[in-house]
Amino acid sequence: MPVNLRSPDNLLPVEGVALSAVEAGIRYTDRTDLVLMSFTEGTCVSAVFTKNKCCAAPVVIAKEHLLESSYDLDQGVRALLVNSGNANAVTGEKGLANAKRCCEVIAKALSIDAKQVLPFSTGVIGEQLNMTALERAIPAAVENLSQENWLDAAKGIMTTDTLPKGASRIIEINGESVTITGISKGSGMICPNMATMLAYVVTDAEIEQTLLDELLQRGVDESFNRITVDSDTSTNDALVLAATGKSKAGKLCSDSEISSFFDGLRSVLIEIATAVIRDAEGATKFVKVQVRGGRDEECCKTIAYDIAHSPLVKTALFASDPNWGRILMALGKSAVDSLNMDKVDISINNLPLITAGQPATSYTEEAGQKIFNEAEITIDIELHTGAQAWHVWTSDLSHEYVSINADYRS
Amino acid sequence: MPVNLRSPDNLLPVEGVALSAVEAGIRYTDRTDLVLMSFTEGTCVSAVFTKNKCCAAPVVIAKEHLLESSYDLDQGVRALLVNSGNANAVTGEKGLANAKRCCEVIAKALSIDAKQVLPFSTGVIGEQLNMTALERAIPAAVENLSQENWLDAAKGIMTTDTLPKGASRIIEINGESVTITGISKGSGMICPNMATMLAYVVTDAEIEQTLLDELLQRGVDESFNRITVDSDTSTNDALVLAATGKSKAGKLCSDSEISSFFDGLRSVLIEIATAVIRDAEGATKFVKVQVRGGRDEECCKTIAYDIAHSPLVKTALFASDPNWGRILMALGKSAVDSLNMDKVDISINNLPLITAGQPATSYTEEAGQKIFNEAEITIDIELHTGAQAWHVWTSDLSHEYVSINADYRS
Repeated sequence: MPVNLRSPDNLLPVEGVALSAVEAGIRYTDRTDLVLMSFTEGTCVSAVFTKNKCCAAPVVIAKEHLLESSYDLDQGVRALLVNSGNANAVTGEKGLANAKRCCEVIAKALSIDAKQVLPFSTGVIGEQLNMTALERAIPAAVENLSQENWLDAAKGIMTTDTLPKGASRIIEINGESVTITGISKGSGMICPNMATMLAYVVTDAEIEQTLLDELLQRGVDESFNRITVDSDTSTNDALVLAATGKSKAGKLCSDSEISSFFDGLRSVLIEIATAVIRDAEGATKFVKVQVRGGRDEECCKTIAYDIAHSPLVKTALFASDPNWGRILMALGKSAVDSLNMDKVDISINNLPLITAGQPATSYTEEAGQKIFNEAEITIDIELHTGAQAWHVWTSDLSHEYVSINADYRS
Repeated sequence: MPVNLRSPDNLLPVEGVALSAVEAGIRYTDRTDLVLMSFTEGTCVSAVFTKNKCCAAPVVIAKEHLLESSYDLDQGVRALLVNSGNANAVTGEKGLANAKRCCEVIAKALSIDAKQVLPFSTGVIGEQLNMTALERAIPAAVENLSQENWLDAAKGIMTTDTLPKGASRIIEINGESVTITGISKGSGMICPNMATMLAYVVTDAEIEQTLLDELLQRGVDESFNRITVDSDTSTNDALVLAATGKSKAGKLCSDSEISSFFDGLRSVLIEIATAVIRDAEGATKFVKVQVRGGRDEECCKTIAYDIAHSPLVKTALFASDPNWGRILMALGKSAVDSLNMDKVDISINNLPLITAGQPATSYTEEAGQKIFNEAEITIDIELHTGAQAWHVWTSDLSHEYVSINADYRS
């Protein structure tokens, strides 16, 4: 029951990128589970990966290949292969060999080098990939490559997602249009320490590697690094940003060009990151926790996460219960020295709830109930101790979350 | 559905302490909700309180009174008043006045000073105490004071608890018996940063204030500071340790006397602390997360909590699903620099699961399933990076937890 989320019906093709999604039958049946993405020569690729120390075999290999291919522009990344249903994590030497093998078969089919291919996997941890099924599906994946297949690709990378996720923007630079299209997947094990699960964003803009890396990091800090479902960080998280350079706008150079492009990129990233929260496992609410007036950003972040991760706040949200005592409890347990409870103001969707640490005199249970019944809730906390701010997007904790995660492997 | 927990039918009276539990009708009906505990003159009292910055009015007043009464041994703490159903938290000046008033009425009834009374409340946050109901019940509470009422008191302080919690030990010191009896309450909003919710432990041993404070802190560090249900710290947590000095064993002095006493105290504290986990909201499993071989205690603690707080580990435990990938995921996300996943061994109830970061060759899904079906589970993690260790007790995350906390106020 995603919260105000629809299947993206308007994903724009990006010159220089072709995609396909096929049914390999790796774990799922009667659905696509293998996605191939190929880039034109000269595409510049940047990526960020999970910081979980238990990182999956494809993450290890993708990092290696990205590094190796960066030494030589003629040998840059040309293809991504993504399978869903199996994470190829905690699979030892055999898992690494399988991830490498994925790259080799794609390289052979596309006449490129194996290090020009990045592998990605998402799904159950601790099982070996069914390579027979995977390899059998490669010819169809290559054959079906097309610029038009963004929605199919968004569907093919899903696991517990209920809807595909994606967004496109067209921006104008030097009178020419630049397209940015991105897709993402993920709905549980979401507390990215860089990016959630899998996301692929491609633009036809021409962007130098250093600038691309910087824009990606800035964009991620404002999108995927601000979402959490359950505080759990996946072993397979990855976000790839590719720039094909096929737009007629020329190389991004001036501050204003970069700024225009970044606005578009950020917008796509925020849309596909928050889509993960709208489709969070069992979610019935889409919640933004906004913390302002902090002494530094770090303390705002600590408080935002303490509230967003509190099972008692999340179950109250699920119940549409204006039990604001739990928000205060979660705020009060924060290990933030500068926090002064007697200064704190809290409002929910602009309804004052707490003023200077005490219930707002204007607050009524009836007004509170009306707000808490809404599907989109912003908890706004003003600390009055400084000028810094931070926010995080999260979901509630429902019966359905427990069901999904208790039954995941059965 | 508490896990291997029974109502304590053997709570021993302690010379110098009388208790009563009465029905005040503060929030609940047809059950006791007001507990009075009175101590003989000369009783030495120590306490630890919640570190939540949003701390309730009774916590503020109890701390003040404890401090004031410590200046004069003849004016030591003589009574505790505990109400359940209403936490008297986030209740402003009126809440503070009500907490003081509780002490005043008890002081008058017992002919002592108000500062010799400590008030405690537990229940819903953000509502004013019904003082009329509370005061009306005081005469009966005074009249019913008896050494025999430990079980009644354990029942009277309950909120979402399904069973009363308590334990007694008799130890021998200098050929004389010393009794320690303790009760506790709590089952949700449990991640004490000193003590969970409410616990009262009384002994007839004679113990000087400084030593009593020290023994309490040591005991709490090995018991209540090692339990977590949901990572949420209450606004009202308090643990009181009182020593009446009525035993014939004389003042605790030698190291061996202190050591014998501490063994008994620790045993009572661990029993009543783990009882909270056995009765955790919706719990179907009693889980110990033991982390060994850490470079320092702090890193073991971080890892133990990361696993104990992971909703994905907790839902897998609820499902009795040997989905050990989630344990590795939670371990890997720990912000512990010294962690080397390739060294880690993990076993569950002595069944090797992970050896040097990979699935143990002897492990079978069938054997894993058998262990995960059990109600008591110890997750044992050996880091092989040092000699330090830490453990925490926790519960699983069930549908019932969501139900209890979504419906709490309705």
